[in-house]
Amino acid sequence: MISLVIGSYNDYEAIIPAIKELKKFNLKFELVVSSAHRNTEETIEWAKKAESRGTEVIIAFAGLAAHLPGVLAAVTTLPVIGVPLTNSPVSGMDSMFSIVQMPSGVPVATVGLGNVKNAIYLAMRILSIKYPDIKSKLLKASEDMKKNIREQNKVLQEKLKDL
Amino acid sequence: MISLVIGSYNDYEAIIPAIKELKKFNLKFELVVSSAHRNTEETIEWAKKAESRGTEVIIAFAGLAAHLPGVLAAVTTLPVIGVPLTNSPVSGMDSMFSIVQMPSGVPVATVGLGNVKNAIYLAMRILSIKYPDIKSKLLKASEDMKKNIREQNKVLQEKLKDL
Amino acid sequence: MISLVIGSYNDYEAIIPAIKELKKFNLKFELVVSSAHRNTEETIEWAKKAESRGTEVIIAFAGLAAHLPGVLAAVTTLPVIGVPLTNSPVSGMDSMFSIVQMPSGVPVATVGLGNVKNAIYLAMRILSIKYPDIKSKLLKASEDMKKNIREQNKVLQEKLKDL
Amino acid sequence: MISLVIGSYNDYEAIIPAIKELKKFNLKFELVVSSAHRNTEETIEWAKKAESRGTEVIIAFAGLAAHLPGVLAAVTTLPVIGVPLTNSPVSGMDSMFSIVQMPSGVPVATVGLGNVKNAIYLAMRILSIKYPDIKSKLLKASEDMKKNIREQNKVLQEKLKDL
Amino acid sequence: MISLVIGSYNDYEAIIPAIKELKKFNLKFELVVSSAHRNTEETIEWAKKAESRGTEVIIAFAGLAAHLPGVLAAVTTLPVIGVPLTNSPVSGMDSMFSIVQMPSGVPVATVGLGNVKNAIYLAMRILSIKYPDIKSKLLKASEDMKKNIREQNKVLQEKLKDL
Amino acid sequence: MISLVIGSYNDYEAIIPAIKELKKFNLKFELVVSSAHRNTEETIEWAKKAESRGTEVIIAFAGLAAHLPGVLAAVTTLPVIGVPLTNSPVSGMDSMFSIVQMPSGVPVATVGLGNVKNAIYLAMRILSIKYPDIKSKLLKASEDMKKNIREQNKVLQEKLKDL
Amino acid sequence: MISLVIGSYNDYEAIIPAIKELKKFNLKFELVVSSAHRNTEETIEWAKKAESRGTEVIIAFAGLAAHLPGVLAAVTTLPVIGVPLTNSPVSGMDSMFSIVQMPSGVPVATVGLGNVKNAIYLAMRILSIKYPDIKSKLLKASEDMKKNIREQNKVLQEKLKDL
Amino acid sequence: MISLVIGSYNDYEAIIPAIKELKKFNLKFELVVSSAHRNTEETIEWAKKAESRGTEVIIAFAGLAAHLPGVLAAVTTLPVIGVPLTNSPVSGMDSMFSIVQMPSGVPVATVGLGNVKNAIYLAMRILSIKYPDIKSKLLKASEDMKKNIREQNKVLQEKLKDL
Repeated sequence: MISLVIGSYNDYEAIIPAIKELKKFNLKFELVVSSAHRNTEETIEWAKKAESRGTEVIIAFAGLAAHLPGVLAAVTTLPVIGVPLTNSPVSGMDSMFSIVQMPSGVPVATVGLGNVKNAIYLAMRILSIKYPDIKSKLLKASEDMKKNIREQNKVLQEKLKDL
Repeated sequence: MISLVIGSYNDYEAIIPAIKELKKFNLKFELVVSSAHRNTEETIEWAKKAESRGTEVIIAFAGLAAHLPGVLAAVTTLPVIGVPLTNSPVSGMDSMFSIVQMPSGVPVATVGLGNVKNAIYLAMRILSIKYPDIKSKLLKASEDMKKNIREQNKVLQEKLKDL
Repeated sequence: MISLVIGSYNDYEAIIPAIKELKKFNLKFELVVSSAHRNTEETIEWAKKAESRGTEVIIAFAGLAAHLPGVLAAVTTLPVIGVPLTNSPVSGMDSMFSIVQMPSGVPVATVGLGNVKNAIYLAMRILSIKYPDIKSKLLKASEDMKKNIREQNKVLQEKLKDL
Repeated sequence: MISLVIGSYNDYEAIIPAIKELKKFNLKFELVVSSAHRNTEETIEWAKKAESRGTEVIIAFAGLAAHLPGVLAAVTTLPVIGVPLTNSPVSGMDSMFSIVQMPSGVPVATVGLGNVKNAIYLAMRILSIKYPDIKSKLLKASEDMKKNIREQNKVLQEKLKDL
Repeated sequence: MISLVIGSYNDYEAIIPAIKELKKFNLKFELVVSSAHRNTEETIEWAKKAESRGTEVIIAFAGLAAHLPGVLAAVTTLPVIGVPLTNSPVSGMDSMFSIVQMPSGVPVATVGLGNVKNAIYLAMRILSIKYPDIKSKLLKASEDMKKNIREQNKVLQEKLKDL
Repeated sequence: MISLVIGSYNDYEAIIPAIKELKKFNLKFELVVSSAHRNTEETIEWAKKAESRGTEVIIAFAGLAAHLPGVLAAVTTLPVIGVPLTNSPVSGMDSMFSIVQMPSGVPVATVGLGNVKNAIYLAMRILSIKYPDIKSKLLKASEDMKKNIREQNKVLQEKLKDL
Repeated sequence: MISLVIGSYNDYEAIIPAIKELKKFNLKFELVVSSAHRNTEETIEWAKKAESRGTEVIIAFAGLAAHLPGVLAAVTTLPVIGVPLTNSPVSGMDSMFSIVQMPSGVPVATVGLGNVKNAIYLAMRILSIKYPDIKSKLLKASEDMKKNIREQNKVLQEKLKDL
Repeated sequence: MISLVIGSYNDYEAIIPAIKELKKFNLKFELVVSSAHRNTEETIEWAKKAESRGTEVIIAFAGLAAHLPGVLAAVTTLPVIGVPLTNSPVSGMDSMFSIVQMPSGVPVATVGLGNVKNAIYLAMRILSIKYPDIKSKLLKASEDMKKNIREQNKVLQEKLKDL
């Protein structure tokens, strides 16, 4: 199971594209609101029990001084993926640094600014080393991307004729 | 009592100027190593008991993805001062953002990049609203700064003659 | 009393959320327009008399080359909280640096970019070391945040069913 | 097996701490020099065959316009960890952006600036979802970190007495 | 022939001003969608054959971790112009670094953030060392710019009278 | 008279090249230590009387949250030149923003990061609109720069022969 | 006379507030379009003759790689004020650096990002060392700012009653 | 012929690696000192005559407010390559922006921060569209890079055995 965490319901809107990928690939997941700063101890309790509840990868989405991914990584040995959200005056540079610059020994796998979809693709790559069906889904997605480029190219060539 | 926290013994060297200020002003303090990422739950336990042990202001020094001040602020209502240390390739911009950009409701009082002394001066200003003797020390320090500038000016005028 | 200062009436709109927090917590405050650059000496006079008028914490909100918090901190020993406003082409990086990078001896307690609410919460933490009723308000606010997260979680789980 | 890639022998020195962690944890690994820009097609061939040779996680270290992790991620579905090296005038901000900002569908798990050790810890977290012995090593490392903090604290308290 | 490449059809809108310049100057060109990350090997095949198909300059437009120009430059010796697109939270600083910071030996000729027109003007300057007619077009464009400034000046002086 | 101000004797070393230019051009000047934060009111008194004492241009050198030039500009109508010093972890970006981003109505003429010499050249340009002898000195300096380039070129051509 | 230069008619809109200040203070000025890159030699000719035509201060407004102020400063000894315009993806950081970081010997007096009004106030401060009537205008403007703050304060106090 | 320009003899040291590449590839070149700011008109004269003297590509190296490449590009239609030097407190971000952000119509082909060698490789790519012998040299260099990687790999594998 992939466990997704947001620190506030306000972040829900931003991560809908991630949930859609999870549904598209038919992956088992849960999503909870739990904060590194507002209910810290509950968040830690949740993270400590995650593995025994079946979580294999955690994805934490956070903006501003984004401590959520790091705090989760601190209390579990599961792989934790961090997604810097961009709802700040400095466009997510704050959350980027707060997520990626973890001290040695407690890593967070960071993906791009606001790139909530890539957190799912990274979770799939991680799970695929254990689950052949997820590997198959990834290989198919990879083929689909190639096909998609070819189709885009056709559309583009048509478009150019009209210019 | 002012409680100082560093996340690693490696940060000790950087904060010695702060300790010297504490000693100069004869302020009661403690200093502990406790990390937001390496012994998270012990750190939280320590912070939750700080007030009952007599702590009135917490100062947390941290570099990189500096979560320490924020995590402490999350589990206590004491004023927490955060000092971004500068031991990173981006010269503390990472720790600055990780400390200052806290979500509404859980503030950290941030001072300048690597400015460990100012954490002490800020703690004194905070305590001075309650303790008249600390107010007196601040007023004297303020006068001393003015005198010091006058003396610097004299030295400078002499120096200029030689140029 | 908490004294709030803005350097221009133009900043009033930006700080309304701070005033609402002050009213929610029923805290005594005043708000004045006084500038570090346009009526410097009056601003300094005001700051020097603040303590005798009953001010215990000053909050200064400022954008651009935000000198207001630093100039106030220079002429009083009260704790001064600085809030970098974000009304500039560089989204408040200018005001952030102008506020937080004070020289040793004259600290400003800086909160996040445009985070006017956190200035109030920080002022409350500072005052709470002296005033038990403010401590109580903070503890209640802390509990409310936890409850609020739980409620957000319920709403989220309902929402997910519909997806 | 964990496969490590550097784009130039010049980067060898920077990644020695990573190799030491691999040896400390007795993990199976290989290390090759192969570049995204200087022998692109060979690099792609290598990556395409990695999985069949037994690679389960790839770690790519790169500085400047660090395309290596992204190009590897483009031609395999293995999890790819990218480490931004800091050997540039902008201290690794260039490699950070070049690694983390991958397009949706082709993620690279990014760790901190020059934090070569954390790439190993992240690889271990990823592998631990499949290999119980690596999980055990991680749990022990986690306990060791806690013990280490306690020991640092003792040393610190002794040190403070002398000050 | 000038060959233009975008990594996704989504970038088409952004480069229309470049295509208009090509048409204005009546230059021979082709435009394809081909990605450094989604169909890497096809992209490389395309680039390797470009010269034999008549391409003399390649222009690659890319945003985020913009590897496209660098990967093209890696597998051909044609001059490659890279245009950092600005469709990211950090306004193209990511693509700028990803394009310009190429390792020694594999240069990309970088133009300004989102400045798709300048890629065309740069391609013309490059081609003009071989083709006198393109040199003539450039000289004429240069004269036109001067005339245009004079006309703008006249309009401005009129405008000022009305103010 | 050109009045130079530094906020601390520590900055003296950094500005010696400026003093040497003043002496080279035989310009009347004074240099004082006076701080925006440590002896604010004395600094303001000094600035208010500067004009009556014969000052025509003020140059203020400052690092970190560099308020000195702005505070001086606030209490006088003399032209104030600000030089951002670079003695900070962020290499003077803090002082640059603190100096240049002044509110409308209170300008500071900012020169480059740590470029103390250019403050003198700017002061000379300003004074030259009133004093023909300073105009002459500037014109001569301008000619000297041209000659100097020609001489550098000769040295370079010799050097190249040896390569 | 104050001579204003923009490099393109497109910048006219951005500088209207500057022109309004000039008219408000009844200052003699001219405004021309002339570019550092599109009609370089005409621009240089214009600048070389400016002084003999009566120009005493030049203000150059420019965005992107803003070379205009620097090129003007290179061919005249008049004081040149540079205003970094903010019409770029990086919000004027490009023009700021291009204007302020001039080599020693050729200074440009830089004002804030997009702060076109401050260029006028700075020009007035410069001219006021020679022209007593401009000094009077500045002193009056200074008094007006103080009065204005007092009035803003009154409005604010009324507003607060309604909250 | 490739014409190299530096704005000051001080930059000579930084560009020696470029000169060595020119010699290694046996390319015809000249190198001159000529400044955009200190002998502007001579620089423009030089650039205008460059083509008739046999120059086919210009390479301009510059630091700080690096106007040299842009000014050269403004007065010639030759391809101009700009190299941002890194001798500034902000490590070349100033020169990067000053070089790359040219207005539409006057492009500068920018290479990486301080990457003087890549200017030569880019010049060779440009010239290779006209000169088959330079194309041959590039192809050989490309093969040499591949061989070099293979050799580095062998050395690395030996090194690893000793670890």
